[in-house]
Parts: sequence; structure tokens; C-alpha cells
Amino acid sequence: MPFVNATDFVKRLLVGRKLSSAQLGETLLPKRIALPVFASDALSSVAYAPDEILLTLSLAGLAGLAFSWEIALAVGVIMVIVVVSYRQNVEAYPSGGGDYEVATVNLGPTAGLTVASALLVDYVLTVAVSVSAGVQNAKAIFPFIAGSEGLWAAGLILVLMAMNLRGVRESGTFFAVPTYAFMAGVLTMIGWGLFRILVLQEDLPAPTADFSIVGSPDYEPLVGLAFVILMARAFSSGCAALTGVEAISNGVPSFKEPKGRNAATTLALLGATSLSMLAGIIALANLTGLKLVDPDGHSHFVDQAGNPIDYHTTAMGQLAETIFGAPSFGFYFVVGATLIILFLAANTAFNGFPVLGSILAKDGFLPRALHTRGDRLAYSNGILFLAMAAAGLVLAFNASVTALIQLYVVGVFVSFTISQFGMTRHWTRHLKDERDPVARRRMQRSRVINFMGLTGTGVVLVIVLVSKFLYGAYLAVAAMIGVFILMRAIRAHYDKVARETAVGPMDARLLPSRVRAVIMVQEVNKPTMRAVNFARATRASSIEAVTVSIDDAETRAIIAKWDSQELEVPLKVIASPYREVTGPFLNYVKGLRSDNPRDVVCVYIPEYIVGHWWEQLLHNQTGLILKTRLNFLQGVMVTSVPYQLASSQYAIDRAKRNTAAAWRRPGSGQVRIGVPSDRTKEQ
Amino acid sequence: MPFVNATDFVKRLLVGRKLSSAQLGETLLPKRIALPVFASDALSSVAYAPDEILLTLSLAGLAGLAFSWEIALAVGVIMVIVVVSYRQNVEAYPSGGGDYEVATVNLGPTAGLTVASALLVDYVLTVAVSVSAGVQNAKAIFPFIAGSEGLWAAGLILVLMAMNLRGVRESGTFFAVPTYAFMAGVLTMIGWGLFRILVLQEDLPAPTADFSIVGSPDYEPLVGLAFVILMARAFSSGCAALTGVEAISNGVPSFKEPKGRNAATTLALLGATSLSMLAGIIALANLTGLKLVDPDGHSHFVDQAGNPIDYHTTAMGQLAETIFGAPSFGFYFVVGATLIILFLAANTAFNGFPVLGSILAKDGFLPRALHTRGDRLAYSNGILFLAMAAAGLVLAFNASVTALIQLYVVGVFVSFTISQFGMTRHWTRHLKDERDPVARRRMQRSRVINFMGLTGTGVVLVIVLVSKFLYGAYLAVAAMIGVFILMRAIRAHYDKVARETAVGPMDARLLPSRVRAVIMVQEVNKPTMRAVNFARATRASSIEAVTVSIDDAETRAIIAKWDSQELEVPLKVIASPYREVTGPFLNYVKGLRSDNPRDVVCVYIPEYIVGHWWEQLLHNQTGLILKTRLNFLQGVMVTSVPYQLASSQYAIDRAKRNTAAAWRRPGSGQVRIGVPSDRTKEQ
Repeated sequence: MPFVNATDFVKRLLVGRKLSSAQLGETLLPKRIALPVFASDALSSVAYAPDEILLTLSLAGLAGLAFSWEIALAVGVIMVIVVVSYRQNVEAYPSGGGDYEVATVNLGPTAGLTVASALLVDYVLTVAVSVSAGVQNAKAIFPFIAGSEGLWAAGLILVLMAMNLRGVRESGTFFAVPTYAFMAGVLTMIGWGLFRILVLQEDLPAPTADFSIVGSPDYEPLVGLAFVILMARAFSSGCAALTGVEAISNGVPSFKEPKGRNAATTLALLGATSLSMLAGIIALANLTGLKLVDPDGHSHFVDQAGNPIDYHTTAMGQLAETIFGAPSFGFYFVVGATLIILFLAANTAFNGFPVLGSILAKDGFLPRALHTRGDRLAYSNGILFLAMAAAGLVLAFNASVTALIQLYVVGVFVSFTISQFGMTRHWTRHLKDERDPVARRRMQRSRVINFMGLTGTGVVLVIVLVSKFLYGAYLAVAAMIGVFILMRAIRAHYDKVARETAVGPMDARLLPSRVRAVIMVQEVNKPTMRAVNFARATRASSIEAVTVSIDDAETRAIIAKWDSQELEVPLKVIASPYREVTGPFLNYVKGLRSDNPRDVVCVYIPEYIVGHWWEQLLHNQTGLILKTRLNFLQGVMVTSVPYQLASSQYAIDRAKRNTAAAWRRPGSGQVRIGVPSDRTKEQ
Repeated sequence: MPFVNATDFVKRLLVGRKLSSAQLGETLLPKRIALPVFASDALSSVAYAPDEILLTLSLAGLAGLAFSWEIALAVGVIMVIVVVSYRQNVEAYPSGGGDYEVATVNLGPTAGLTVASALLVDYVLTVAVSVSAGVQNAKAIFPFIAGSEGLWAAGLILVLMAMNLRGVRESGTFFAVPTYAFMAGVLTMIGWGLFRILVLQEDLPAPTADFSIVGSPDYEPLVGLAFVILMARAFSSGCAALTGVEAISNGVPSFKEPKGRNAATTLALLGATSLSMLAGIIALANLTGLKLVDPDGHSHFVDQAGNPIDYHTTAMGQLAETIFGAPSFGFYFVVGATLIILFLAANTAFNGFPVLGSILAKDGFLPRALHTRGDRLAYSNGILFLAMAAAGLVLAFNASVTALIQLYVVGVFVSFTISQFGMTRHWTRHLKDERDPVARRRMQRSRVINFMGLTGTGVVLVIVLVSKFLYGAYLAVAAMIGVFILMRAIRAHYDKVARETAVGPMDARLLPSRVRAVIMVQEVNKPTMRAVNFARATRASSIEAVTVSIDDAETRAIIAKWDSQELEVPLKVIASPYREVTGPFLNYVKGLRSDNPRDVVCVYIPEYIVGHWWEQLLHNQTGLILKTRLNFLQGVMVTSVPYQLASSQYAIDRAKRNTAAAWRRPGSGQVRIGVPSDRTKEQ
């Protein structure tokens, strides 16, 4: 197989520019694999978006459901607009920087950061919504879940977290099989259902066909403002079907050449599939008399006699039951594939979140170590953070997709709108320099498309904000603002430090005149001897060992042992009537410094290297505190002289096991060294 | 005032031997101050021990209460035995090492460690029981506490914790006033009550005088085994009156000369006071018809018609109400003083626990840093641990003294018994060498006394264990065993490390031939320049700067900046295709080492010193991970070159504020330095 390891290259290629073209060659994706790898998020939203349309409309009772077609059509129009617009993005920005790059390049860092904040919050919501939808769908197979959906969802998120932390790496097939299974299952179900109803003229009533609905009195009249508001809410919730479309624009570099074109084709395929699924499900819902009610109780089912009925199977579950029969292969196949693709969609967020974090870290908006340390740190921290935030959400909302969807979508459309605005600017900018009339015409066409995209997504954003703000979108907006402010503060801090630490003309010439070595002695043993030997090897101008006396008997023993070693290093004893080590030692070093202001003091601290965290509690604590306090003195450096205890081997073995996968990656062992003379050749 | 600061010297003098005699002179206690300082724990137990006797007896109904006199008498006898025995301890071991020292010296480290485990667990229970008793007593004044006693108690423990963590230092007066107030209040109440009843022949019925009691069917018959078990349980609970007696034996060094004699006198005073209070309260309870029932519901009050009554005021509260009248100065004085002394008793545990921890750390049974770092670390950690454990207990038992007392007392009597066994051994050992017949006779007398102490406390220990084991003592025993095993494991670890690191004959001669300096470069700025300058000052055999290239553009900028500085240090570039810094850097250092096995590599890492913890998250992370991994390489030392950012001043100022008290302590700023030639004079 030409492709190796999907998440691995997805995550690397999304950032991507560090890989040499030779390495890239191995991992390029044909469209048939790229579609499932990038599309699980977008496709999976078909599993809950139709539900949200139907159950929102149910607030107006049976009469409301009649409008599902119109809402689905509106969502479909927006989906076409977004897909067509994003085809422009992928062709113009094949580097895979995504909306963050488009916004930053064309609209400046504030716009970029806004997009990034929206995306970070949306990753959390993707996990929460996808897993919640999975749990809701799972109730069709496992009814015992009902009542503790939040706990099940949180549990699943923890499983995802553990999988991702342990670095389980899925192959392309891992994505391809369930994604195609889901597409095949749902499209077959739709086709077979439509065939039986329209061609065979069968009567296929959904389990809820005979139910009636009692809606909310606020919306029941279906006229005036209430009607507009209800339609807006249903439309906003239905727009959840568009989430995930932007994933392909992040993944362009991993497509086979011609990248832009292939990505654009895949995007069109994805759009077409999503659209047919959404349309098919809504059509079948209408044809089978399928109904849904708000799980939060603002509308509910009643039978013909008016008695309330408690029934909450999802649209996908009801259709599978109606078309294939309740315990049948088709039923389990569709419901099972839905579960798995929702789980996969959550998993892609676990990959995308740290990648975005790493890009933001590079630009100084998140702790820089997340970027420079490579993927690992960003990954573990990102995975932990994402899992905790998402688990908190599903617990707080008891895995109610309907409740969570009020927070979702806002972020996606903030990002869509800004990105399309950026693209419009992009074309305007390029049009200034372009003279070729053919190219100009193409650019103008693209600009019109992106402007339509901007208008469409902008209008949706306003509708979403207005119709959902009080229902929960305010939480998402607040989170985005919080993330934005935090990232700005981090960047401001880095900028301040950079100004403070900028090299001045004399900095390279501030050579201390002498180095005075001071060895901290607590015991006379191998670690101390090693510190003495290493310190002597550095040939400092002066060298002395210092021990703080906290117990006369102990001190006498130390002195006797020291003398017996016949070292050429004098041992000084500092009295400490209060059994404190750091204070007196610090004062001694301060004294050395003030007596010799042009010298630098180097303090050698023997350090025990151990294999278990609890051993760490038993050793080095005094050295650690001393080091922390010495760091605040000017002109003092601290040298740790490690002594590896036998137990340290455990840690080495453990580290080897844990990083085995990482070390096995091709090329990571290579070291290319350029010395100044030949550096220019290397670059 | 000749004495300065009670907890300060209590804590220091309990460990004590590090203070010079000149300093000791200032802080010696006359008996009138020593009594309240050390006695609050022992005296405060009078506030709950009589209650526990009465309410345990109530399990057998009204008939059971008739035996309160006998139980009080038995407790009194044990108290006399313990006080007389401990007078031997204080005269024989005036160093103040307490039961741990007596057991370790005479019976070996295992016995010592058993005592220490028992004491550590008992400190936790002292806090839990004292605060709970305070809360139960407080209900007489603040009835709204009822129902959430556990939360109030936990809150009070957190207040105590905060006070102790912030280092609020009580003066001797702080102890003396409430302790004498409590003694005066309770003894006046007893005297006035007895006078009115016995001399004035007044009829003083307690609020519960007319109540009847429905006991537990298990104990109602008051014959056979049930009777024996009930008496044993009442006696065991009453023995809580003895807790705290050992405190004086820990405090001997802070008494005025003759220390032993003065401490013994104080002990006798304490015993007499406790005994009269206990006897007085039980006597008045009998004379006023005072009754108590088990708050956990195994017995309850009924009125004459048999209707249940909910009434839970403590004996102290009922007596104060009966003798002084309900809202009266005397009533509030007694109840208020009781509250305060219980709070003080809990506070003494906050002082004693870390002191014992520090002694155990010195002997290697707890992390050694708790000892060598002086009081501070042991204090903060000990206070936190004690508060958390005690708060957990009061929450778990809803501050029920009756429930907690089942866990208490075991530890005290384990410690009493082993200590008295140790004293018996002590005299036997000394008798072997003593020839003077007068001294021998005195020693033999002492041995008899301690043997009686051993027998008495041993019998009580068995009674307590048997009668309370299933009611909760098993928890205390399990905790002691757990603490014991943990401390043994820590000591075993230190012993193993000591064997591993013992200096061999060649260790002082393993001088590396050369030092190769490697400077880690991530940016070219002031911190890096400082690292370069410091490294150059050490005059290493070879010196080079190394940067890991994770981004071509960045690397090119670093190289350009480096060259512009015209340093004499070459900059090497290591390629890292996976944007990882530590791995490639580590491999480079490994390569240096294996190419030059007789040299030592010194890695210089520039470190940003910042003022806030969150800034730490934004800096140094790469260096930290690199250092951690370099530590596992043989022959590599790591030098941190700190660069103090402007914000580091915040941390310095904060540290100065926090340690201002510590620095103000006399003598801690003094540094006495002895160089090898004159060391012998110093010692």
C-alpha cells in the first residue's frame, strides 16, 4: 500500500512544510482514501442535523413538521454555497493552513486569532456533539443507556482520550471502511426506502407515524414573529450539517497532484454525498410519517387518545427500523455504522485540535514549547485539555445533542465567514497586480463566488447568533472571547520578553573575569565525589565545597569522611542554628558575589537520578529549592551533576517503551550537523 | 516578658538540641506558663470524656447510668497510674524526645516506629475529635449548627490550617488565658454546684432530669456478657480523658531548672486538675439527674408519657445551664472557654505533628528534606496533610465525637504501653551497672512504678482494642499499620541508596580528562549571550553552540544573528525533520560522549527566571525536558544559566514578604564559616 498511517500523516501534513518532498511522496492520498480520512466529521453530522430540524419544528406541533422540506432546502443551498466557496480556498491555499492562514494572511493577525479561537472552541464541541449523538443513536440498540447518557458519553470521551494519549495510530483503512460503510448503508437505506414507497407503492409507516405531537404554546400559532423565530432556529440547528466541510481545506497538502484540483473534486464529492443524505432522510421522514420531539420536553408525543408517549429514537434509528425491519442485518448495519462514524468524527477533533495548537504555538499565541518540542507535548496536552472540556460539556448537558447544538455552529460560521471575507480580499489584492485578462476573469469569477460565500455564511452567522444566543450560543461566544483574550495575552507576554531580551551591542562582550566553583555537600558519597571531580575538571579559578551544619554529629562525620578522601578541595562549614539549609547557603553565595562582583559563581549540586516519581520525593528536594532560589541571584549559574542510581534504569526502559513508536519513525534518528563554515551549503 | 513566642519555642524546643544554651535561657518556662502551654490537649479531653461515659452507659437505659461512678473511678485510677509513670519518663529523659525516643532507645527502632505510627495517627484524631467536640458544644450557643456539624468542623479545621500555614504565632499568654479560664470556669462551676446542692441543699435538676431513656435491647438486661461489654466500652471511651498527658514529656527541655522535677510537678498538677474535673462532672451529673443519649441513635430520650424527645446538649452545656442558669455570664463563660480550649487542643496537634515528622525525617523514615530544610517544609506539608486527613474524618463521621472516639485512644495507649515497657527496660539496663544501693533502690522503685504503668496501660489497651475494634478501632489500627509500612519502606529505600552511593577507594580519583561545553541555542538573545559568556569564562577544552533546526526560516535568522555577534564560539545546526528538539539534541550529546569517552560534557541551558507561575508555563519547558533527559546520560552535567526577567522581581518581593518573619528570627542570618585548617576549633 502506498500510504502508511493516516492520522500520523494527517497531523504532520496539516502542518506539513517540514517534510522533504521525498518523504511527502510516500504519503500522498488518492481521492478515494482522502474522502473518508477528511470527511468523517462532515458526513457524520448528517446523523444528527436532520433530527435537529425535525425536533425543533415539533415545537409548533404537527403543523411545524410540514416545513421540514423548506428548512432542508435552505440548509442545502447554504451547503452548496459553502462547498463551492471552499473549492476556491483549496485551490488558492494548497499549503493546508486552513481558515487560520487565510484569515491571517488576508485580514491580519486579529482576524486569524478570531478564527483560531472559534476553531478551538468548535473542536471541543465537535467531540461533545459527536459523542453525544453517538450515545443517542446507540439507545436504539442498547436501551439501558437511557437515563445516564452523560456518563456514557463522558466515558467514551475518556476512552478516546486514552487511545489518543497512548498513540494508537489508525491506518487509512481504519477510516475508509466505516466511512464507506456509513455512506453505503445510509444511501442504500434511502434508495431502498424510496424505491419501496415510490415504485412499489408500499405503505411504510415509521414507528411514530401514528403519534400526534403537543408542541410549545409559544410556537403553536405558526404565524408572525413566532413563526420566523421557529424557522430560524430550525435552520440554525440544521446548519450543523455543514460542520466539518472545512477539514478538507486543511488537508490539501496530502492529496496527490494536482493537489488543489483533487481536493476541490473531493470537496464536491463530499458536498454531493452530504446533500443527498440530508435530502433523502428528510424526504423519507415526510414519506413515512416519521416524527421527533424535543428531548428537553418542550414538545412531546401523544397517542390518538391524547395520552403522552415517551419515545426518543433518532431519525436514523426510526428509518432503519422502518425500511429494514427492527431486528435485521440492515438495521444493525446502519445504526452501527452511524455509531462508528460519530466516534471517528470525535477522533478527528483529537487530531486536529493539537495540530492547530501547534500552529498557534509557533506564532506565539500558545506556550511556545507546544511547537518547538514537536508534536508530542502539544498532543498530550491538547488531548487532555480537549477531553476534559468535552467531558465536562457532555456531563453538564447530559449528552443532549439538542442542548449542545445551541453552542455549536456559531464557531463554524464565524470561521466560514471570516475565511470567505479573507478570500474576497485575497482576490482583490491579486487583481491589482494581475494584467492577463484570462487570469483576471478567472479571479473575478472566484471573487464573486467567495463574496457569495461571505454573504451566505454571514447571513447564516447572524441568523444563528440571533436565534440561538440565549439558548446557549452565548456560552460558545464567551468561550471564544476568553480563548481569544488568553492567546492575545500570551502573545503580548512573548513580545514583551523578546523586547526585554533583545541582544544589545555589548551583550556578547560581558565576559566574567573568573569562575568560582562552589560544591554543595550534604553527604560524602559517590554523587558528591562525582560533583567534586566534575567541578575540578572545569578548572575554575577557585573551588570549594560547602556544607550547612544542621546537626553537629552529622557535620563532624562529614568532615571526617571528607578528610579521609584527601581531596584537594577545602570543605567549608556554615552554621545553621535553625536547621535551614537554603537560607545560609544562599547568604554564603551572595557574600561571594558581593566580594567579587566581576566573577561568576558556579554552584555544583549533586543530583540523584531515580526511576520512579515517588523516589523523586525522597531525593533532591533540598537541591531543587536551593536551585530555585539561586536562580534569582545575578551572576550565579547552577550545575546539576547527575548520579544515576540503579533504579534510574526503570525510567530509561519505560521511556524507551513509550517512545518506541516515535523512534521508529523514519528519519527521526538522523542528525544533520552544519558547522559555521559549511552552513551556507546546508541551507 | 522573658518568654517570647510559645509555639515557636515549643516546636523548636521539642526537637531542641540545636539551640545554644544561651538561646535556651531566654525561652525557659516557669511552671505557671508551662502548664497551659502543654496541658490544653489533656485538659480539653475533660470536655468530652464524661459525655462518652454517660452516653455509652445510656445504651442500657436509665439503669446503665447508675454505673457512671464506677467507670469514672476506673478511669481515674488509670489516670493516676499514667501520671505517676510519666513522672518517671520526664525525670529519666529530660531531652524531650518523648515516647518515640524512649521506645527507640530501649526497645529498638521497630518499637520506636510503632510508637511514631500510633502518634501520627493520633495527631489526626486529636484534631478531628477536639474540633468535633467543640462543634458539639457550640450547639448549646449556636443551635443552627445542628444538621451540618461535619461541614462546620471541616471549616474550622481549614481555618486552623490557614492560621498555621500563614505562621500565626501564639504567645504564651495566648495559651495561658483560655486554659486558666477553662480551669477556673469548670472548677468554679463544679464547686458552686456542689455547694448549692450539698451545703445549701438546693434542688438543681438538669434539663434532662425528668427524661427517661430507651436503651438498646442488646444491653438492656445489664447482666452477663452484655454487661461486661458495655462497661468495657464505657471505660474505653472514658479513657479519652487521658489523651494529651504525654505532651508534657515532650516539652521537658523548655521547663526551668530543675527541668525534670518541674516537669514532674506540672504533670502532677495536670493530673490532679483533670481528675477533679472528671470526678466533679460525673458527680454533678449524678446529683442533677443529668442524662445523655447516644447521638447515633442507639438510645434515645422519652418523656414520662413515652414520647421521644430530641435533645443533644453536652454534659458541660447542661451543667452550665443548670448551675448558672441558661442565659447568664457563667453559662457563656464555661461554654465559651470549653470551645476555645478544644480549638487550642486541635492547634497543638498542628504544632506537634510536623515536629514529630521532622524527627522521623532525620532518622530517614520520612523524606529527608523534611528535616534538613528546617522547620518550614515539614511544617507546611505536615499542616496540609494533617488538616486534609482530619477534615476528611470529620466529614466522613459528620463530626460525631462518639463515632470518632472509637478510633481514638487506641493510638494513645499503644504509645503509653510501649513507652512504659521501654521505661521498664531502661531501669533494668541501668540497674545492671549501678552499684550504689541508694540509687539502686530508687531505680527499683521507679521500675516498679513503670511496670505498674505498663500493666495498667497494657490492660487498657487490650480492653480498648477488644471493646472497640469492630466499632471503628480497626480503622485506626489499619492506618497505623499503613503508616508503619510506609515509613519502613522509605527507610529501606534510603538504606539501599546509601549502600549504592557509599564512597569507594577510587571515587575521588575519577577525574575526567576534559570538559566539552555545549550551549543550547533556541534564540539569539540576552539569555543566550549570557550562557555563551559564562561558558566561555569556564575555559572548557572545547566550546560550541548547538541549535536544533525545526524551521528553516527561523534557523537562517538565528545563524545570521549569531554571525553578526562575531562570537568566537561556532554554532552547529542539527536537523530535526519532526520538529522535535530534545531527541536530536540528546543524540548529538550522546555522540559527543561516545566519541570522547574520557571527557565530560557540560550542557549550558539559558533559563528565563520569571515572577509568576503561569509565566513558567510559557518559558523553559524545552530546557526542562532536555535537562530531565540529559540527566540519564553518564558523564554529562547540565548548567542552568539564569536570566532574570524584569518580572522576576515580583517573586523576590513576594518571597521577602512571606519569609519576613523567618528572616527576622535572631541568628538565622549569621553565617559561621570554618575552613579545614581551623575546623577543629569550631567543633
